[in-house]
Amino acid sequence: MKKYNFYAGPSILPQFTIEETIKGLKNFAGTGLSIAEVSHRSKEFDAVIEDAKSLFKELLKIPEGYSVLFLGGGASMQFAMVPYNLMNKKAVYVNTGTWSKKAIKEAKIFGEVVEVVADDFFSLPKNIEVPSDADYIHITTNNTIYGTEYKDDFDFDIPLVADMSSNIFSRPIDVSKYDIIYGGAQKNLAPSGVAFVIIKDEILGKVNREIPTMLKYETHINKNSMFNTPPVLPIFAAYQTLRWIKNLGGLEALQKMNEEKAKLLYDEIDRNPFFEGTVAKEDRSLMNICFVMTEEYKKLEQEFLKYATERGMVGIKGHRSVGGFRASTYNALPKEAVEELIQTMQDFEAEHLAD
Amino acid sequence: MKKYNFYAGPSILPQFTIEETIKGLKNFAGTGLSIAEVSHRSKEFDAVIEDAKSLFKELLKIPEGYSVLFLGGGASMQFAMVPYNLMNKKAVYVNTGTWSKKAIKEAKIFGEVVEVVADDFFSLPKNIEVPSDADYIHITTNNTIYGTEYKDDFDFDIPLVADMSSNIFSRPIDVSKYDIIYGGAQKNLAPSGVAFVIIKDEILGKVNREIPTMLKYETHINKNSMFNTPPVLPIFAAYQTLRWIKNLGGLEALQKMNEEKAKLLYDEIDRNPFFEGTVAKEDRSLMNICFVMTEEYKKLEQEFLKYATERGMVGIKGHRSVGGFRASTYNALPKEAVEELIQTMQDFEAEHLAD
Repeated sequence: MKKYNFYAGPSILPQFTIEETIKGLKNFAGTGLSIAEVSHRSKEFDAVIEDAKSLFKELLKIPEGYSVLFLGGGASMQFAMVPYNLMNKKAVYVNTGTWSKKAIKEAKIFGEVVEVVADDFFSLPKNIEVPSDADYIHITTNNTIYGTEYKDDFDFDIPLVADMSSNIFSRPIDVSKYDIIYGGAQKNLAPSGVAFVIIKDEILGKVNREIPTMLKYETHINKNSMFNTPPVLPIFAAYQTLRWIKNLGGLEALQKMNEEKAKLLYDEIDRNPFFEGTVAKEDRSLMNICFVMTEEYKKLEQEFLKYATERGMVGIKGHRSVGGFRASTYNALPKEAVEELIQTMQDFEAEHLAD
Repeated sequence: MKKYNFYAGPSILPQFTIEETIKGLKNFAGTGLSIAEVSHRSKEFDAVIEDAKSLFKELLKIPEGYSVLFLGGGASMQFAMVPYNLMNKKAVYVNTGTWSKKAIKEAKIFGEVVEVVADDFFSLPKNIEVPSDADYIHITTNNTIYGTEYKDDFDFDIPLVADMSSNIFSRPIDVSKYDIIYGGAQKNLAPSGVAFVIIKDEILGKVNREIPTMLKYETHINKNSMFNTPPVLPIFAAYQTLRWIKNLGGLEALQKMNEEKAKLLYDEIDRNPFFEGTVAKEDRSLMNICFVMTEEYKKLEQEFLKYATERGMVGIKGHRSVGGFRASTYNALPKEAVEELIQTMQDFEAEHLAD
């Protein structure tokens, strides 16, 4: 049976990425060796990392003065690296749920955190006031667990740091408004095991604490992400996804596709009497579409999960902290998968209304 | 032309590992999805990490009371994590070259380092005296750059921490003599992007500093290496190598093969008038065999490198800090590759002696 991959991350990747990764595992760049067993110092891998960086800059239109890094450890390591490198006394953190909370926990080790929070996590704080003496403000642009997303770029008077783990490359962004953009690659980019960091070079060097070498951004900027052995295979796969994005027509094309997929599914959620969305409409994520059974049909939740699983839907169970369902509709998810899920919801509706 | 992979790391992996990784990329555990795009919380991946841990414990005969972790960031991150978690005031570091120096640099951020060092890095310090008030002693068991190796386990009265990046699984070890064994996986285990840590649980919790969550060993012990998204694909590949080791007959069998390969090559280095070893004989590594042209033939170094490269030898150039040649003879390197290198050395000798 054909499977439809709605996992929230690690999650669906382009078939192109998987096929090219397999080719690289068999014979990398004509070396006669596998990408799994070549030196990161080989000229062939050096070309991969250079090309990946160039494509990153090209696709996101990254201005001069920024570096692009590929690091191990995932976004969770960035939760600590950001305050380690940037916080002198105080930073503002917009708390939009689970991931922001984890980032806040690490920041508190290094200084004072001013939290900005909405009434609940099903809508997003807007009109954010920032104290001018804060070192930076941190936002999470998309929240995989609650299904909320900031769909426009902010413009703050203090440095802006954004965790874009789950919506990077889903739409064009104005990088010049950000000082650091980071994320785990395992949603829209690559298998897990690599984090990307886009960093405005001039923001660094302003704290006095001693920073362990691996946690210091300058280390990796100066060595072009090759201070130590980087995660070669995940970076190679990320490079394939970047090529795929370029071939598709870049971020404008992807944005259009993502908006179309999300609209289809949200329209069905709003129409179908068995389901309802959980998030304030203006804050609904295009990447993680969260919904529950309406009060009347709540008791059918397990049944729908089973029904959808039997039709090949994988990973639509909501996160344990919120329940219900979550369809992750990342870049690589084909429209067909969304249509199949909608069909499944409609068939479920028809069968139960007929009861 | 057939290529022989002598890279020092990332380096040759068993063909079994590469083939099984490709299978997993096509269809992982019958899920119909690629290992690159399944959730780390899926029951199928949970089985992989559990089985990998079990094989780790079985092959290394790890006693009760130890945890096995798979983390991102590589051994270089461990250089900081070890003192972050263990150092109160003072630690002993045996300085055996480049890698030890990097570990020492991080340790100095957290306390006093007592260095033990040999006259040069071509032999290893023995009869090491340790002050009883040191928090731990740190050794690097194998040195990829200088080609030295401790081939027996030490027995110290204070906690022992060992970086075994480049000789883990090359011989049986007595884990009970160690408190932490760590390493990057990209030599004898997996593609780069994952580090392993074997840790005696009771050694933790003895420092007072606040440790960022991702850098705290307890975080990963409590969450079974799944606090955050682990490097799924490198862990999957590591698991395949562990299966390969078990099928081969375990570490006793590998030790025998490694000793045999190394003896063949060292014997040729000692016999061939064009070459000589650089390391004190008793300290010669079984994993990284370093040699240079003898004084008389020094000028032929570039020529031999070209000659060997044309015969399919990849990665035999010595590290830039020591020059000459280095043949890395990790577990997965077949005896045939060593024999081809020896043949190349002998043919080079014959051609030049005939001149």
